[in-house]
Amino acid sequence: MTRRAAVFRLPMAGPDDVSAIAALIVTGALAPGAIRAILGKTEGNGCVNDFTRGYAVQSLRALLAPHLDAAALAALPMVMSGGTEGGLAPHWIVLAEEEGNGPPGVPALAFASAVTRPLHPAEIGRRAQADLVRAAVLDAMDRAGITAAENVHYVQIKCPLLTADRVAAAGGDVATTSTLKSMGLSRGASALGVALALGEIEGLVDGDVGQDLSLWSAVASCSAGIELLACEVVVMGLSPLWSGPLRIAHDVMQDAIDAPAIARALERAAPGTGLQGARGAVIAALAKAEASASGRIRGARHTMLDDSDISSSRHARGFVGGMMAGLIGHTELFVSGGAEHQGPDGGGPVAIIYAAAKGSEA
Amino acid sequence: MTRRAAVFRLPMAGPDDVSAIAALIVTGALAPGAIRAILGKTEGNGCVNDFTRGYAVQSLRALLAPHLDAAALAALPMVMSGGTEGGLAPHWIVLAEEEGNGPPGVPALAFASAVTRPLHPAEIGRRAQADLVRAAVLDAMDRAGITAAENVHYVQIKCPLLTADRVAAAGGDVATTSTLKSMGLSRGASALGVALALGEIEGLVDGDVGQDLSLWSAVASCSAGIELLACEVVVMGLSPLWSGPLRIAHDVMQDAIDAPAIARALERAAPGTGLQGARGAVIAALAKAEASASGRIRGARHTMLDDSDISSSRHARGFVGGMMAGLIGHTELFVSGGAEHQGPDGGGPVAIIYAAAKGSEA
Amino acid sequence: MTRRAAVFRLPMAGPDDVSAIAALIVTGALAPGAIRAILGKTEGNGCVNDFTRGYAVQSLRALLAPHLDAAALAALPMVMSGGTEGGLAPHWIVLAEEEGNGPPGVPALAFASAVTRPLHPAEIGRRAQADLVRAAVLDAMDRAGITAAENVHYVQIKCPLLTADRVAAAGGDVATTSTLKSMGLSRGASALGVALALGEIEGLVDGDVGQDLSLWSAVASCSAGIELLACEVVVMGLSPLWSGPLRIAHDVMQDAIDAPAIARALERAAPGTGLQGARGAVIAALAKAEASASGRIRGARHTMLDDSDISSSRHARGFVGGMMAGLIGHTELFVSGGAEHQGPDGGGPVAIIYAAAKGSEA
Amino acid sequence: MTRRAAVFRLPMAGPDDVSAIAALIVTGALAPGAIRAILGKTEGNGCVNDFTRGYAVQSLRALLAPHLDAAALAALPMVMSGGTEGGLAPHWIVLAEEEGNGPPGVPALAFASAVTRPLHPAEIGRRAQADLVRAAVLDAMDRAGITAAENVHYVQIKCPLLTADRVAAAGGDVATTSTLKSMGLSRGASALGVALALGEIEGLVDGDVGQDLSLWSAVASCSAGIELLACEVVVMGLSPLWSGPLRIAHDVMQDAIDAPAIARALERAAPGTGLQGARGAVIAALAKAEASASGRIRGARHTMLDDSDISSSRHARGFVGGMMAGLIGHTELFVSGGAEHQGPDGGGPVAIIYAAAKGSEA
Repeated sequence: MTRRAAVFRLPMAGPDDVSAIAALIVTGALAPGAIRAILGKTEGNGCVNDFTRGYAVQSLRALLAPHLDAAALAALPMVMSGGTEGGLAPHWIVLAEEEGNGPPGVPALAFASAVTRPLHPAEIGRRAQADLVRAAVLDAMDRAGITAAENVHYVQIKCPLLTADRVAAAGGDVATTSTLKSMGLSRGASALGVALALGEIEGLVDGDVGQDLSLWSAVASCSAGIELLACEVVVMGLSPLWSGPLRIAHDVMQDAIDAPAIARALERAAPGTGLQGARGAVIAALAKAEASASGRIRGARHTMLDDSDISSSRHARGFVGGMMAGLIGHTELFVSGGAEHQGPDGGGPVAIIYAAAKGSEA
Repeated sequence: MTRRAAVFRLPMAGPDDVSAIAALIVTGALAPGAIRAILGKTEGNGCVNDFTRGYAVQSLRALLAPHLDAAALAALPMVMSGGTEGGLAPHWIVLAEEEGNGPPGVPALAFASAVTRPLHPAEIGRRAQADLVRAAVLDAMDRAGITAAENVHYVQIKCPLLTADRVAAAGGDVATTSTLKSMGLSRGASALGVALALGEIEGLVDGDVGQDLSLWSAVASCSAGIELLACEVVVMGLSPLWSGPLRIAHDVMQDAIDAPAIARALERAAPGTGLQGARGAVIAALAKAEASASGRIRGARHTMLDDSDISSSRHARGFVGGMMAGLIGHTELFVSGGAEHQGPDGGGPVAIIYAAAKGSEA
Repeated sequence: MTRRAAVFRLPMAGPDDVSAIAALIVTGALAPGAIRAILGKTEGNGCVNDFTRGYAVQSLRALLAPHLDAAALAALPMVMSGGTEGGLAPHWIVLAEEEGNGPPGVPALAFASAVTRPLHPAEIGRRAQADLVRAAVLDAMDRAGITAAENVHYVQIKCPLLTADRVAAAGGDVATTSTLKSMGLSRGASALGVALALGEIEGLVDGDVGQDLSLWSAVASCSAGIELLACEVVVMGLSPLWSGPLRIAHDVMQDAIDAPAIARALERAAPGTGLQGARGAVIAALAKAEASASGRIRGARHTMLDDSDISSSRHARGFVGGMMAGLIGHTELFVSGGAEHQGPDGGGPVAIIYAAAKGSEA
Repeated sequence: MTRRAAVFRLPMAGPDDVSAIAALIVTGALAPGAIRAILGKTEGNGCVNDFTRGYAVQSLRALLAPHLDAAALAALPMVMSGGTEGGLAPHWIVLAEEEGNGPPGVPALAFASAVTRPLHPAEIGRRAQADLVRAAVLDAMDRAGITAAENVHYVQIKCPLLTADRVAAAGGDVATTSTLKSMGLSRGASALGVALALGEIEGLVDGDVGQDLSLWSAVASCSAGIELLACEVVVMGLSPLWSGPLRIAHDVMQDAIDAPAIARALERAAPGTGLQGARGAVIAALAKAEASASGRIRGARHTMLDDSDISSSRHARGFVGGMMAGLIGHTELFVSGGAEHQGPDGGGPVAIIYAAAKGSEA
């Protein structure tokens, strides 16, 4: 027998609005025990003082506490990404696993998670973190029944950052003493761990993290948060051990206006049906966005890195979000900021979860 | 003999960087006396305390003062629009008029400006303003040699706003006592003046301004500024009295993610050559952006109107800018915020100035 | 027997950090059932999209749920004020009531709360709201055992605002259709209700709210929130029916730099002991701050109302907070923004809860 | 014969409003050739993309160009500091030198400026910069006729920063590759140069800059700007070679709420006359403000360093500005942000230029 993915994209009226998830539970469309991960695009600033992430997680825990035992609830990955700049819409993406009803066949959407041991502060943003993430990715692939690196299409990671207390605990032997900078280094080290696991890069030294921008993963999407010390890894891909209509495809934006990368991913979702057909098939879209460190997009100056009123990640999310929304035709897009080693400088990975046309199902 | 348009899109390293224009003057590629209008997309916040606009104008005046007599310099329209959110690039668009070298023929890009008399504060944001703008649009069409409303493809307007002093001068008989609100009402009344001139609407009462969002112009682009009391109008369109390779086309975005509207305008710029061909033909692209008052984009909630950290016009410019840049392939786009009565709620006009393919020239 | 007030000012590491309150409960220093109100100064922007307030309330409810029955928990006033600009420190102020141990004597700090019936949207920001608040203030005074208006020293109110849905429900018969503007009108109407209750003004018509800035209360502090339709009123004052060392004094800042008003309130807290003595006596300090509508402070221009990057209420809180902190000697100050009809234009009430010197106790 | 200082504090309606200075020139109250420096507190964000500074300088140059020869105009120090958060008022401070009418006597306000040679990028933010500033301070003291370090009461410095181009020009041998960070290092190295000149510290190594916060000057006030490569130094102090009623006093705030430091400086301005007397004597007040790196003010948490919506320097200016304004009684205060090595962590120097009471004049 196979396993079968169910993915729900649901609206959110605020970080504490879990009513759409609750409604699915009440009607029986979603069994709480089947939930494997919850992603949330919340409406904060996505930076240091974004409390919408913690508020959303607290609200999710309150919703699920009556349904799950404490250990299961504690282990459930909840990845909140703040920032719905421009016309982006706050929303939840719930990944659930059901029993499939057929034998292994056409590869379908598959996912699973794994968690590293807690990191020592001295490991954050360094090769040690990448090595731990590498192992967790391989572990999650195994749990998901994804056997080849080429079948991994997105890896969502939540990783720790450095605080003053943690720096002190490490006796100062840390990658950086800046909390904000540690977020980028931690995201970068996580992404390089994915790249190691999937063979996208071959080796790594401490000094590469945050420095050698030619090293990157085409499927990693990482966010750093203060609330954990381990790295949580959710691997998404295709596996013949999973059935059902859902699939996933990905591509890499080379810069912030790389619409053809989005178009290629959509074409994979609904070959030959044009933009309109592809739009109908899309269940969820996930992408990373960032301001290019060069200060340029195709030669023209951008002002994102010089704007002291709005952080560059807010600029980048809204801008890339607009680019994607024009093609995909809606605004519930999981665009996340801070793409260190996640795609090339100024670009980033994009993944489309979609429903395959009838006839192509397992 | 015909007239002939020259349009230069030039980079800007800051509001005071007029070096690209200066270079054209030095080399003789641009005669200062030929300049008919200068548009500038500057990197401020585009709101009340955006000083990049005034700084840019002061820098332009210092550049041109040695070349033009005081009256000509004072009369030259300089329309600065603040805000290069997301990846948008600060740039100048210089409109110049040269002598054509052929007889009237295929309609080519044509433009001219006109100025209303100074408005009384009591007229700002009301039907009286719309009537004055209506007359100025007709006057500018006449000067540009554009004979039919359908040949007008963009009308850029700079109009006044109310300040505490002006409210007092009117004895309180004003459309609003709020400076910020008066900017929207003034833009809206100007847009409705364009709509009256072009027959897009038939009549108007004071109460319609800012209220009846079903009344709008498909070609108006208006911005309000504190530095003037008259309305400056620059009409752009097509006229057989002008020659040369330049053309203009427009369309109307129905909402903030209406990529097909952009695609249609591009298709007009280079029929049958696909996106790549159209991109090569584009000289300048101008559009309006705004957050829909409904709080929704195709049913999904947006957060632009509830964000007390970033004004909605900044959100909208970056988002629509990203959408356009993905299609047009560069980021020097003149996206301006605050689209009251300029296109439908949440949408806005877009115009493309382009070079016609060889063979289609006059 | 008398009643006796206990007031705890406690630090907060974030909106979800209720550990300092929990610690008091664990040690028995604070009985959950004795809590009469909790005020929280949280670190959001204090404007529309400030989720720290809801997050703090959700965290408080989770803390107290095991200790209080549902009705008591629902009825407990929790007034969160967002915004710790400048050096202000996030903190809780817990008001509890214990049994006193002596007969009525020297008037001591007394407080109680009352709630109006839910307002109809058409009543918000109008005289009807003021009338309801007036009655609730008198009710709360009665519950607190405060018999004379002159013994009321601070009235903290949480009141509703208008949303698009509520405007629709009223068939458009509302004070304003703007959510943001309705916050100010609701705060203002609440403050005028206090003024009516205490005889600070004599009468009121709808048009006065938000317009006639000469009408104000010297003790009202109002904040508007989306989460309620009634007005919650907490009255603080002095009553001989309460005993113990705690007292309250107030004064009115005439503008944003009225340090003498703070000094006078401090002098009342510790007469003749100088600033240093007064500082030692202060338990909690509460004040309102706002940008003067005139755009001036003692004739000099301020830029708070023209700053499109930072809302004027954020500017005002940080500035007035600095002024107060210099005198009071610490930064855990409950400075709240939006002072319509709460003190004169640009100024606002300030109250000091303090411990009386030995010998002046009941 | 002596020299004599004239200091004008003048309002500004915007960065381009030099009308108050122009009026003094027209009436003859200010001779353009007598101007020794102009300080401007402008209303931008005081950070990277603050164009109000350049706009103000461009406006000043246009005003003075008809009056001064090009070399004199180029050499005139114009120190613009962006940011009038809270109730601070934009204003100019013009320092002019006239002929005195008496013999040397009671030390009076004295000032002069000096400029270092252009710095090599590799020198910025390092000991080399401090050494150059040290020499310039001694040079300016000499020009001002200030003979002892103890008679120096304020040193205003404008210094360069690193840009990508400058980093490249140095072959990467720079103190930092971050533009923003280079501003702090440059300010810090300048301040340490003042400390060296005045004997406040004894020695210095590269690694001290930005690291050893126990090293600081009690009179340095430094700001970094992109528009210069040299360091401009304006020394203010007391000298018996100057006459007239003007004086200067300074003190050091130990933290952001150190009101007694302000009170001490005021007491020096008008001994024994109380706050009211001192206020009347104040001509100009200058101070530095910053968020303490500890994240604490007297033990209580502040949120300035964690706020991703408002930069910490904006928070600090408004807060310290409020504290000062309460004591000084007006809001035209030259509060500048970024106080690295300028006073202790979280504190900063403050100087008061005042008019001595009759009888104490030379």
